[in-house]
Amino acid sequence: MSSSDIFIGETIGTAILILLGGGVCAAVTLKASKARNAGWLTIAFGWGFAVMTAVYIAGPMSGAHLNPAVTVALAIKDGEWSNVPTYFAGEFLGAMIGAALVWVAYYGQFHAHLTDKEIVGGPGAQATTAKSVEAQEQGAGPVLGIFSTGPEIRHAVQNLATEIIGTIVLLLAVLTQGLNAEGNGLGVLGGLITALVVVSIGLSLGGPTGYAINPARDLGPRIVHALLPLPNKGGSDWGYAWIPVVGPLIGGAIAAGIYNVAFA
Amino acid sequence: MSSSDIFIGETIGTAILILLGGGVCAAVTLKASKARNAGWLTIAFGWGFAVMTAVYIAGPMSGAHLNPAVTVALAIKDGEWSNVPTYFAGEFLGAMIGAALVWVAYYGQFHAHLTDKEIVGGPGAQATTAKSVEAQEQGAGPVLGIFSTGPEIRHAVQNLATEIIGTIVLLLAVLTQGLNAEGNGLGVLGGLITALVVVSIGLSLGGPTGYAINPARDLGPRIVHALLPLPNKGGSDWGYAWIPVVGPLIGGAIAAGIYNVAFA
Amino acid sequence: MSSSDIFIGETIGTAILILLGGGVCAAVTLKASKARNAGWLTIAFGWGFAVMTAVYIAGPMSGAHLNPAVTVALAIKDGEWSNVPTYFAGEFLGAMIGAALVWVAYYGQFHAHLTDKEIVGGPGAQATTAKSVEAQEQGAGPVLGIFSTGPEIRHAVQNLATEIIGTIVLLLAVLTQGLNAEGNGLGVLGGLITALVVVSIGLSLGGPTGYAINPARDLGPRIVHALLPLPNKGGSDWGYAWIPVVGPLIGGAIAAGIYNVAFA
Amino acid sequence: MSSSDIFIGETIGTAILILLGGGVCAAVTLKASKARNAGWLTIAFGWGFAVMTAVYIAGPMSGAHLNPAVTVALAIKDGEWSNVPTYFAGEFLGAMIGAALVWVAYYGQFHAHLTDKEIVGGPGAQATTAKSVEAQEQGAGPVLGIFSTGPEIRHAVQNLATEIIGTIVLLLAVLTQGLNAEGNGLGVLGGLITALVVVSIGLSLGGPTGYAINPARDLGPRIVHALLPLPNKGGSDWGYAWIPVVGPLIGGAIAAGIYNVAFA
Repeated sequence: MSSSDIFIGETIGTAILILLGGGVCAAVTLKASKARNAGWLTIAFGWGFAVMTAVYIAGPMSGAHLNPAVTVALAIKDGEWSNVPTYFAGEFLGAMIGAALVWVAYYGQFHAHLTDKEIVGGPGAQATTAKSVEAQEQGAGPVLGIFSTGPEIRHAVQNLATEIIGTIVLLLAVLTQGLNAEGNGLGVLGGLITALVVVSIGLSLGGPTGYAINPARDLGPRIVHALLPLPNKGGSDWGYAWIPVVGPLIGGAIAAGIYNVAFA
Repeated sequence: MSSSDIFIGETIGTAILILLGGGVCAAVTLKASKARNAGWLTIAFGWGFAVMTAVYIAGPMSGAHLNPAVTVALAIKDGEWSNVPTYFAGEFLGAMIGAALVWVAYYGQFHAHLTDKEIVGGPGAQATTAKSVEAQEQGAGPVLGIFSTGPEIRHAVQNLATEIIGTIVLLLAVLTQGLNAEGNGLGVLGGLITALVVVSIGLSLGGPTGYAINPARDLGPRIVHALLPLPNKGGSDWGYAWIPVVGPLIGGAIAAGIYNVAFA
Repeated sequence: MSSSDIFIGETIGTAILILLGGGVCAAVTLKASKARNAGWLTIAFGWGFAVMTAVYIAGPMSGAHLNPAVTVALAIKDGEWSNVPTYFAGEFLGAMIGAALVWVAYYGQFHAHLTDKEIVGGPGAQATTAKSVEAQEQGAGPVLGIFSTGPEIRHAVQNLATEIIGTIVLLLAVLTQGLNAEGNGLGVLGGLITALVVVSIGLSLGGPTGYAINPARDLGPRIVHALLPLPNKGGSDWGYAWIPVVGPLIGGAIAAGIYNVAFA
Repeated sequence: MSSSDIFIGETIGTAILILLGGGVCAAVTLKASKARNAGWLTIAFGWGFAVMTAVYIAGPMSGAHLNPAVTVALAIKDGEWSNVPTYFAGEFLGAMIGAALVWVAYYGQFHAHLTDKEIVGGPGAQATTAKSVEAQEQGAGPVLGIFSTGPEIRHAVQNLATEIIGTIVLLLAVLTQGLNAEGNGLGVLGGLITALVVVSIGLSLGGPTGYAINPARDLGPRIVHALLPLPNKGGSDWGYAWIPVVGPLIGGAIAAGIYNVAFA
C-alpha cells in the first residue's frame, strides 16, 4: 500500500467509524431522536456494525486499522514501524471528521437537547446518580458521552485495567485471524467477525468505562467536543482523557506480546 | 441482464423490501400486533433483514439495486445510463406493491388502530410531543409512519443533510464492495453485509428523519398511503415528500464522486 | 438421499426446530423463567436461530426442509413428488417430539405457571385484552401460545392472507437461493441466511397471527398440547388450527408458481 | 496438535470465553454498570459472541473445544481419549483465569454493588421472589450469578434434564458440522455458526437453569467465587454445583451416541 492510500483509507474509514459509532450514542441519548433510550444492546450493535461498515469500505485501501492500538500491535508483531505515523495521522483526522459529521447529522437534536431546561438547566437536570455528580464535578456536560467515553466509577488504575483488558481481547482476535482485511485467516468474512468481536467487548466489558479500546475513537471526538459551538455543552473532562489513549495502547502492546510468545 | 429481467427483478425485490420494511413499522406501531412497542432495535433489524431478503431473491435477476440512489450512483460510477429508467420503473412500482401488501397483511390491525377512539379520536389521541403536534399541523395522520418517513424536527436543510449523509455511507459500502450481488467483492456474503450496513445506518443515523436513504422506499408508499381507503388516516405530508427523494439522490451522487476520486 | 435418511433427518431436524422455537416462547412466557417478558425481538431471533440450528444439523442428511410448505414448493418446482410423504411424516413426527421436549425442559415452569392463581385462577387472571377474551371464548388456555400460533384479531380470510404472504416470502428466498442446504446458491452460508429470512418474517409479518408459515410447526405442537397432562391448560383452539396448515401450503404453492414463471 | 498447543489454546480460549461470558452477566447485574438491566437478549448475545471470539482466537491452536462436554463427545465419536486430560486441564484453568479477569474488569462495580445497603443489607435487599428466597436458603449471594448458573426452580432431576437437552443440541451441531474449527463442514464460517447456536440455546433453553451446558464454564468460576475476597458475597451454592457438571457431560455423551447411530 502506498502512503497516500493508507492515509486516505484510514481517514475515510475512521470518519465512517466515528460517524456511525458516535451516531448511535447521539441516537440513544438526544431529545427528539427516534431511537432515544433504545438501550445498551442497541449501542453495542451500533458500534459493532460501525466497525464492520468502516472495515469493508476502507479495507481494500489501507487495511482498515482505524485504531492506533491495532496499528501499534501490528507494528510490534511485524517489527515494521515505517507506516505507523501515516496510520496515526489518518486515524486521528478521520475520528475528528466523523465526530463533526455526527454533529451535522444530529444538529437539530443537539440544539433541542441542550436548550431544554429540564435537561441542562432546571431542577430536573440535577445529577441524580453518583456517576453524573462525579462527571459534573469533572466538568463533563450532558452530551460529552456522544463524543468520548467516561467511567461510571472514576478510578484511574481500575479504568485503565478495564480498557487494557478489552483491548487485549480485540487485538488477540485481530492478530490471530487477521480480521481487519489483512487476509491471512477469514477472508471476506473477517470484517463481519471483527464487528461481532467488538459487539462482544461492548456487551461484556463496556459496563465500567464505555469501552474506548481505541485512542483515536476517544481523543479525536473529545477535541471536536471542545471545539464545537454547542450551547451548555459543559467541559470535555480532560482529566480522564489520557486513560482511553494509554490503556488501549498498553493493551495492544500486551496482546502483541502474547501473540508473539504463544501463537506465532 | 435483459430489460425485462431488470424490471421484473426490481419490481419483485423492491416489493419484498417494502413489504418487510413497512411490515416491521406496522408490527411495532399498530394496535393488536404482537410486536407493538418492540423498540428501535427491532425496527433497525427489521429493515436490515428486509434488505437482505430482497437482495438474495432479486439479486440473480436484476442485481438488486432496489433503490434509485443505488441505480444513480452505479450509473455515475460506470458512465452507463441506458438501464436507469427500467430500474427506476421497477423500483417505484415494486415499492407501491409492497406498501399495498403491508396493508393486506395488517388489514385488521389498521382497522382496529384507526377506529380506536383513544388513538385517533378522543382526548387521549391529542398530540403529546412537539413532533406529533408538528406532524399534525402538516396533516400527517397516525399511520403515515408505516408508509413513509418523517422528521422529528422539521427543518429542510437539516433533514436533507441527514439523508445525504446516511445515503453516502450506504453507497460507499455498495460501491467499494459491490455488496448488491454485483459480485466484485464479497460474493455470496454481499447481501448479508449490505443488510447489516443498513442496520448500522438505521441505528446510528435514523434518529432525526427515520432514514429513507432511498427515494422509492419513501415516495412509493406515500402515494399508496394517499390512495388507500384507510379511515381517519390523516394527510400524507406532501410538504416533506421531496426531501427523502432529493436527499438520497444527492447522497448517491456524492458517494459516486468520492468513489471515483478516492477509490477507483 | 435414501428414504430413511430423509425420514430420520427431517424427524431430528424438525424436533430441534420446535424444541428451540417452542422453547423461546416458553422462555418468554412462563413464570420462573429467566427470560420472562424478554420481548418480540427475542422471540424473532429465537425462532430464526432455531431454524438455523436445525438446518445445519439436518441439512446434510435430508436437505432440511423441516416444513411441509417447503416440501410442497420444491415438489412443484421440480415436478417430483415421490419423497413428499416421507418428508411430511418426518416433519410432523419431529414437530411433536420437539413440543414434548419443550415440556420436559420447562416442566417446573409449566407447573408453576399453570398452578399460579393469579395467572389461571383468580381475578388477576381475567382476560384483559380483546385478544385474550376472544381466545378464551375459543377455548385457548394460557400456555397454548407456547405450542401453536393464534391470531390477535380472529378473521379467517385475513389470517389466511397473512400466513400466505409470509410463506411466499420464505419460499421465494428458499427457491431462488436453495437456502435449505440444497446447494445451488449460497453454499454453507445458506442456513444462516434462511435463519435471518425467518427473523425478518417474524419481525415484519408476525404481528397479526404469530407467523406459523409451516403446517408442521403449528399442528404438531397443537396435538401435543391436547395430549399433555398440563393442569388448567385450557382448550387447543381447534377452530383456528386449519389456517396455519392451509395458509402456508397455499403460500408455498403460489411461491413455486411465481418462481416457475418469473425466475426459472 | 501438540499437547502444549492444546493446553495453551484451551487455557487462553476458555479464559476469553469466561471473561466475556461472565462479563456480560456482570454488565447486566452490577450497580454502576452502563449495561445494567439490559435484559435476556443481551445476555444471550453476550455469551454467544463470547464463544465466537474465543473460538476464532483459540481455534487454530487447539481446535477450541473450550468445554469438557465437547471434548468428551468428540472423544466418544473418534474413540480417541489420549488428549482428553490435557483438554480438561486447559479448560478448567482457563475458566478460572477468565472468572478472575471479570473481577478485575468490574472491580469497582463489584465493590459498589456489594457494599450497597439496599442491595445486600437493608430491607430492600430482602429476597422478593420465590427463586431468590430459595437461593438464599442455599447460601447463594447476590453476585453468584455472575460466576455460575443457578436454577429458577430447584429440582435436581428437572434441572439435570434441562442441562442435558441443551447440551445435546449444542453437540449435535458441533458433531454434524465440525463447528469448532475442526474444519470438516463450514470452514471459516464455523465459529460464527457455533456462536449463534449458543445464542439459540440461551434464548430457548436458558430460562430454567441459565444454560451452563459446559462443566468448566460453571465449576471453574464457582471455585473462583469461593476464593475471591468479595464483601457480602454469600455462599457459592455447592449443593447445586454437580448438576451443571454432570448434566452437560451426560448430554455430550448422548449426543455422541445419537451421532454415531444416526449421522455417521
